[in-house]
Amino acid sequence: MPVSVSFGSGKLHLSNAFELKTKGSKFADASGILKEAFSRTIDIVRSSHVVELDTSKVVPSLVLRGIHVVISSPSDELQYGTDESYKLYIPAHGNPIYACIEAKTVYGALHGLQTFSQICSYNLSTRGILVHQVPWTIVDQPRFSYRGLLIDTARHYQPLQVIKKIIDAMAYTKLNVLHWHIVDTQSFPLEIPSYPKLWDGSFTIFERYTIADAEEIVSYAKKRGIHVLAEIDIPGHAESWGFGYPSLWPSENCTGPLDVSNDFTFKLIDGILSDFSKIFKFKFVHLGGDEVDTSCWIITPRVRSWLHKQGMSDSDAYQYFVLRVQKLALSHGYEIINWEETFNHFGSKLNPQTVVHNWLGGGVAENVVKAGLRCIVSNQDKWYLDHYIRWQDFYSNEPLENITNHELHSRVLGGEVCMWGELIDAADIEQMVWPRAAAAAERMWTSYDKLAKDPNDVRSRLSHFRCLLNQRGIAAGPLEGLGLTRPFGPGSCYTK
Amino acid sequence: MPVSVSFGSGKLHLSNAFELKTKGSKFADASGILKEAFSRTIDIVRSSHVVELDTSKVVPSLVLRGIHVVISSPSDELQYGTDESYKLYIPAHGNPIYACIEAKTVYGALHGLQTFSQICSYNLSTRGILVHQVPWTIVDQPRFSYRGLLIDTARHYQPLQVIKKIIDAMAYTKLNVLHWHIVDTQSFPLEIPSYPKLWDGSFTIFERYTIADAEEIVSYAKKRGIHVLAEIDIPGHAESWGFGYPSLWPSENCTGPLDVSNDFTFKLIDGILSDFSKIFKFKFVHLGGDEVDTSCWIITPRVRSWLHKQGMSDSDAYQYFVLRVQKLALSHGYEIINWEETFNHFGSKLNPQTVVHNWLGGGVAENVVKAGLRCIVSNQDKWYLDHYIRWQDFYSNEPLENITNHELHSRVLGGEVCMWGELIDAADIEQMVWPRAAAAAERMWTSYDKLAKDPNDVRSRLSHFRCLLNQRGIAAGPLEGLGLTRPFGPGSCYTK
Repeated sequence: MPVSVSFGSGKLHLSNAFELKTKGSKFADASGILKEAFSRTIDIVRSSHVVELDTSKVVPSLVLRGIHVVISSPSDELQYGTDESYKLYIPAHGNPIYACIEAKTVYGALHGLQTFSQICSYNLSTRGILVHQVPWTIVDQPRFSYRGLLIDTARHYQPLQVIKKIIDAMAYTKLNVLHWHIVDTQSFPLEIPSYPKLWDGSFTIFERYTIADAEEIVSYAKKRGIHVLAEIDIPGHAESWGFGYPSLWPSENCTGPLDVSNDFTFKLIDGILSDFSKIFKFKFVHLGGDEVDTSCWIITPRVRSWLHKQGMSDSDAYQYFVLRVQKLALSHGYEIINWEETFNHFGSKLNPQTVVHNWLGGGVAENVVKAGLRCIVSNQDKWYLDHYIRWQDFYSNEPLENITNHELHSRVLGGEVCMWGELIDAADIEQMVWPRAAAAAERMWTSYDKLAKDPNDVRSRLSHFRCLLNQRGIAAGPLEGLGLTRPFGPGSCYTK
Repeated sequence: MPVSVSFGSGKLHLSNAFELKTKGSKFADASGILKEAFSRTIDIVRSSHVVELDTSKVVPSLVLRGIHVVISSPSDELQYGTDESYKLYIPAHGNPIYACIEAKTVYGALHGLQTFSQICSYNLSTRGILVHQVPWTIVDQPRFSYRGLLIDTARHYQPLQVIKKIIDAMAYTKLNVLHWHIVDTQSFPLEIPSYPKLWDGSFTIFERYTIADAEEIVSYAKKRGIHVLAEIDIPGHAESWGFGYPSLWPSENCTGPLDVSNDFTFKLIDGILSDFSKIFKFKFVHLGGDEVDTSCWIITPRVRSWLHKQGMSDSDAYQYFVLRVQKLALSHGYEIINWEETFNHFGSKLNPQTVVHNWLGGGVAENVVKAGLRCIVSNQDKWYLDHYIRWQDFYSNEPLENITNHELHSRVLGGEVCMWGELIDAADIEQMVWPRAAAAAERMWTSYDKLAKDPNDVRSRLSHFRCLLNQRGIAAGPLEGLGLTRPFGPGSCYTK
């Protein structure tokens, strides 16, 4: 829901020769971001039905001829905090009539195009595309600058085409961070030029991403205004790393967490982060740090004696590991995101640049921001897409809950819904993500006072949005499903 | 599996400037079918990874420069029985080296391109596309000329984009008939210009297909060598027709089957078939005829008295209805397909042009062909995709089972797997169809002696094919699933 919106009761026909004008815009579009987005917008608007109306034969005063996009920043840099605001005007009259998007950056303009695409719809009477309820004036910007979706390519590999479709639908829902949980215990699919044997830990040679593939994903996402947040989940979720470099394991029989006693471990992580910094230009890198079971450190004699020599408990070593890697990340120019266990165990020791990523439950953000750190909210009881959670709970989960001091609000960067991949592959990912992620997306985009107090007030809109996703070829499931659900029986999409 | 295949142990690099040559071909490609298919083939081959190899720097004797397609028929007409054979040669040497497809029709050539696409794969060492195991000589043609997949847009509407993706994947599996079960009891989504109130029986105005939409589907399918078989399932599955024309119902309280006593019923069907004949150019139309519960004819006084006057039992009236509609279809130039109940009830009365569509169980084709009629096999215990049936059973279902007289084999046109839509919408259709439909597709394409006696011998190939579908963006599910199944746990696509 936009910050402010007004509309009328007029109608315009979308011209068959609908065009993009950019006169007066300071954005030169050398990389084609705007032109391509415009052309995708028109394709999508026209995809639900064959357009038969010949708008050259309609009275010109009823035809919307194009959209005039005026962008004030010449840069196409996409970075955390890049302005995403836009204004969209669609007049009811004019000669000729053009809609207008004003935005500070091209990424704001892309949001404006998405909104525009949802105002257009195929009309059976005219057999063309109608722009409804003109004149429109929409002023809009997101509440949170971090609106994420996690995908996990370690438990199951996701082909490039599948990731691209996820990104497409993220753009439709105005989510802006693809948190790419690339590697984990089960597999290491990504090429790391500095340590080329790391992807020996992939499931098969067919289930790998080259650096060029990763760059393609970053570039594809950027063209849709979406950041890619890369994660290495260390030291606890990294057994697959040792297939290429067994010395990363405490021992052959005790293969995780990564060996804290071995300098090679940190040298290798430094290499990964160095390679990451060439591809993943998002200001943040995710360093994991959750679910660290230190048993192997304790029972492996070599590691145990090292701990003893350092005068560290296993718990100290966990802290040592995380903090040492934080420094490496900072040295490569990254700010850091860590899962909340790091905060829960040694919050006061974390680098002040740390963003704490909540997942265990509610109420964490409150403590994090009081401690002076920043937070991303993903509490698993509400925002884990692999759990059987109703869309209403996705909608109602408020990242700022119980944070009464308004000055601390800005420390909550936003939130993220998580699509963990244990039971998710290329076949079921879209259904598991959509439409529930869209319910959370509205929570993260919309200003607090515009949000529905009762999520059921949103049902009809969300149900329509799910059908819109289907029209666009996205396999969003029935609203009342908790993920992978077949419809209960025959009927309309709009009542499910 | 092709009719004959030989291959070597060489490798070629697919040129970045891979080109289509058609010198000597009699097919002018005015409609762009071949050019577009060629370009799709290359896009698909390159979709799994970013190609980095610069083939202009590779020794020319190791680069496959293009494919030379020679077609002997100038026509792009697609009709039942259109020759689908092709020969594919990929030499190991030459200067320059070109692959060659020879085909009688462009539709044979399309199959050749599909096969070619499966011989190519991305290679991590070269970072380019390799053509494996050259030289290849493949001679190929289908065993059955009817290899169908039914979709049902009456129980749930399927958006255009979803139907197009189903057609895409049909082309990958060399299925060639999309049986479009358009309308049924629950809804009537298709525009019928002769009777424009018929689609008042759609779920909503958003869940309709215009004539232009239907033409788009037919055209999209044709460009991929796929026929569209349109069905009206009468008189038993047609309650939705009465929302626009209530006089089609025996009464307001007893709304099916269509009123056999009313001449308007047949006039309207004639109108539908007349409209169909302008869009659906496939030689066959499907007239349904299954599951006719005649109770409403018996208990509605007006219809009962008409039956009495005609000296007909309700069962006679069922026969009368089907045969009268068969004549209408013939008058519009169609041959007829009817579900098997028509054969079971009054087989000897059916027009000799009838194709009997088996579904109730096995053993029907045998009786149909002995009776001099033709048959399509879809026995629900093996080839119904909405039932929980293993892929092995899809693979093993033999359309010619127990037909010992070889002269009768040609009366079995082929088979069809059926994706009934009660519990299927845009979200789950792909997973329910693939990869199980691909197992049946091999049964229908491959000559009998090349088929695996034990379907488990096919497992590895089918598992790879499922992963290939995923790479191409098709949501094919795990092999061992019976439709909508999540993977059992983390792991490789290739072992599921």
